[in-house]
Amino acid sequence: MDIHAHVEGLTEEAVAHAHQADLQTQEKYGVKYLRYWFDEGTGKVFCLVEAPSKEAAIAVHREAHGLVADEIIEVQEGS
Amino acid sequence: MDIHAHVEGLTEEAVAHAHQADLQTQEKYGVKYLRYWFDEGTGKVFCLVEAPSKEAAIAVHREAHGLVADEIIEVQEGS
Repeated sequence: MDIHAHVEGLTEEAVAHAHQADLQTQEKYGVKYLRYWFDEGTGKVFCLVEAPSKEAAIAVHREAHGLVADEIIEVQEGS
Repeated sequence: MDIHAHVEGLTEEAVAHAHQADLQTQEKYGVKYLRYWFDEGTGKVFCLVEAPSKEAAIAVHREAHGLVADEIIEVQEGS
């Protein structure tokens, strides 16, 4: 899970657009951006991602749109 | 989405147990804890929750197991 603490001027359209760019960039890195959650008020974004490494996940964001996360934590999922 | 920055001595079993306690407590608050992600290394936990208010979501955690989140952000989801 990655955390973008504050994306300046975050809108629903902007984050959807950035996510599409991730989807088009990720394959060659073996990365899958799965879901994301965002809050336009605070500019916070959480991205759930499957990746061979943190570096690979970061590389996709950097190449796709440049919005590199502030934090990325390897997590297990429960429900 | 809530963020527990560091749960002392976090284990997979402990967080699963706490989540079960949430599930048994939440109904009367109109809250639904949906999914969670955790990292035993850092003790970080993310809980995705549907709730009528932040306070209701916090009340469930407090009553169920006392592990109140450090932060809770109202988010929209995209995928």
